[in-house]
Amino acid sequence: MTAAAHAPRADAAHAAGPRLTPLADRLPSAVPFVGPETQERALGRPFDARIGANESVFGPSPKAVAAMQAALPDLWMYGDPTMHELREALAAHHGVGPQNIIVGEGIDGLLGVLSRLLVREGTPVVTSDGAYPTFNYHIAGFGGRRVAVPYAGDHEDPDALIAAAATEGAPLIYMANPDNPMGTWHDAATLQAMIARVPNGAVLCLDEAYAEFAPAEALPPIDPKDPRVIRMRTFSKARGLAGLRVGYAIGHADLIRAFDKVRNPFGVGRVAQAGALAAHSDDAWLAHVRAQVEAARARIAEIAAANGLTALPSAANFVAVDCGAGNDGGAFAKAVLDGLVARGVFVRMPFVAPMTRCIRVSAGRPADLDAFAAALPAALQEARAAA
Amino acid sequence: MTAAAHAPRADAAHAAGPRLTPLADRLPSAVPFVGPETQERALGRPFDARIGANESVFGPSPKAVAAMQAALPDLWMYGDPTMHELREALAAHHGVGPQNIIVGEGIDGLLGVLSRLLVREGTPVVTSDGAYPTFNYHIAGFGGRRVAVPYAGDHEDPDALIAAAATEGAPLIYMANPDNPMGTWHDAATLQAMIARVPNGAVLCLDEAYAEFAPAEALPPIDPKDPRVIRMRTFSKARGLAGLRVGYAIGHADLIRAFDKVRNPFGVGRVAQAGALAAHSDDAWLAHVRAQVEAARARIAEIAAANGLTALPSAANFVAVDCGAGNDGGAFAKAVLDGLVARGVFVRMPFVAPMTRCIRVSAGRPADLDAFAAALPAALQEARAAA
Repeated sequence: MTAAAHAPRADAAHAAGPRLTPLADRLPSAVPFVGPETQERALGRPFDARIGANESVFGPSPKAVAAMQAALPDLWMYGDPTMHELREALAAHHGVGPQNIIVGEGIDGLLGVLSRLLVREGTPVVTSDGAYPTFNYHIAGFGGRRVAVPYAGDHEDPDALIAAAATEGAPLIYMANPDNPMGTWHDAATLQAMIARVPNGAVLCLDEAYAEFAPAEALPPIDPKDPRVIRMRTFSKARGLAGLRVGYAIGHADLIRAFDKVRNPFGVGRVAQAGALAAHSDDAWLAHVRAQVEAARARIAEIAAANGLTALPSAANFVAVDCGAGNDGGAFAKAVLDGLVARGVFVRMPFVAPMTRCIRVSAGRPADLDAFAAALPAALQEARAAA
Repeated sequence: MTAAAHAPRADAAHAAGPRLTPLADRLPSAVPFVGPETQERALGRPFDARIGANESVFGPSPKAVAAMQAALPDLWMYGDPTMHELREALAAHHGVGPQNIIVGEGIDGLLGVLSRLLVREGTPVVTSDGAYPTFNYHIAGFGGRRVAVPYAGDHEDPDALIAAAATEGAPLIYMANPDNPMGTWHDAATLQAMIARVPNGAVLCLDEAYAEFAPAEALPPIDPKDPRVIRMRTFSKARGLAGLRVGYAIGHADLIRAFDKVRNPFGVGRVAQAGALAAHSDDAWLAHVRAQVEAARARIAEIAAANGLTALPSAANFVAVDCGAGNDGGAFAKAVLDGLVARGVFVRMPFVAPMTRCIRVSAGRPADLDAFAAALPAALQEARAAA
């Protein structure tokens, strides 16, 4: 050995870097979704149609835009950490008290806080295999043990979710209604029966991100005294404000108050609160968006049919299109998706079989769906040739 | 007992509510700061001067306002979860790579993620007694054991912080430079010596929220290969965008990459990224704000002197004003603060003696400081009468 090999090196003692917790150390450094901007950079050009993330391409309420514009010069001020005015408005709308409402950085942010409150290493958490990946990300992030039950056909399965929660002693159950990625839904009576069977001390996180697109019969009444369910709503979908990051939860006052134990207190800023407040009260814009979404769902079904494919009925602002290859593990639908992306049409698809026979197409403007209609035949042809 | 007392009640099984984790269960439901909006609601009127939260009352860059305005109609799209363009710009500015930059929902949000990566129940974490309460909130929120060393006079004490970290085996040390709440600072040589002594496997979180107001000599050079320090910067102070919620951290690529293990992936939205990008490049506005802050610091010192009080030298956009009652546990300064608040002037004060002899006044416009100058004599007189 040379003398140099014996010399102490200034950085040697720090070669290992910071000491992450054992949990953090074993988590992967990867976020649940690759954003379309990253795909566009890979593609070398912008997408012609951005209909993959269930964003509301019909845009935000002009009243919300005006309110946010007015708030911009005031952005030197932190937002109200109690989000008083927005919580009052949401509470009045839902017939609950402000103590039953918490606002957060999108449903994603609220799912993170809820997970943190209920999940520690080894805690069993029940969801459906193929349901929202960001929920799985948060559960894994707190060391929870994910217990995933299969979909029943193309629906989440309330009976299986409740049974698994009871068997496992899970404190947290996740279900989306309407469902993402399939767009299917359960009716209020089914949900009320499910809530009534939530095991003692557990809570059902009912993700209603797509509630505004669903038939009224799909939404059970809100009972803020019931500790067995917390409802998640968002401004990212029907309200057209995905890039603003505002969601809210409605629940029992005890659980809502617990969010104040750990949330980022000033996390929902001033322009976010102003925009959400104005968007919330613009019923006319909401009606406009709903009508556009209904028309778009019909058009997607037509395009699917014209290509020999089947669109699933949807209560959301997207449609799952069955690509018709049966249960092939998703290879065919993935090939179709890749063909669409290569042609400038951003869509996504479910992650878990048998739903992976589908691609998921968000409601678009006529021009967006024209691009989809134009790209689909060639994408299908390519996929069939490769199959 | 009556028959009714024996009857099962539908809600009895759920009386206990959701099962919080033991850690969450014992945390208080309280955020670190009461916002000025809550105080205004108690006061029954808006403050005449909002100079308590070290916000930049001089406002955001007009170019940032224009960029955000242009982004508003695009808010139906989620922001890029990789924050590619903003990270590239910040990296170029600091002479590091984009892999050395993570952007989050304010420094508050980043402190939460950093704590989560490094702290679990019982982990010792070193800070100064009287330093940033939101850091303490996050540490407590992950069950960390806070080890707080005293200030040395009105400065944080690098030697004591390093010594405590070594003794305790702490993986995380927090220090702000310039300091909040005192406005004092250390020079680059002192900080470099401190960084060199960070114990093996620990990381110093150097909170530089007020960096843009500090003399250049207070900012050590950035070495992105050094795993011993992570630097926190923000758009909330000099950039005048507190209500937008954007901060960033500069550090070793391994630690920066770890943020992708647990952060809210879409947490920094589209208008936030657009505003921060434009604000970042407006050097002329930054120079304007710095000049205004310098003038305001001088004016606060004049007002203090005219009332027989002493302003501490400050490298930030606020001034700690010694109210002159010595080490009384803060009673006198609190009385002065209450008198100012009652007169419509929002200020804050340190939480821990002996710094509690001071009130903390943010740099204001001339009208804001006129209101402070007008309210201070009566607030002092009242406080003296009550003492």
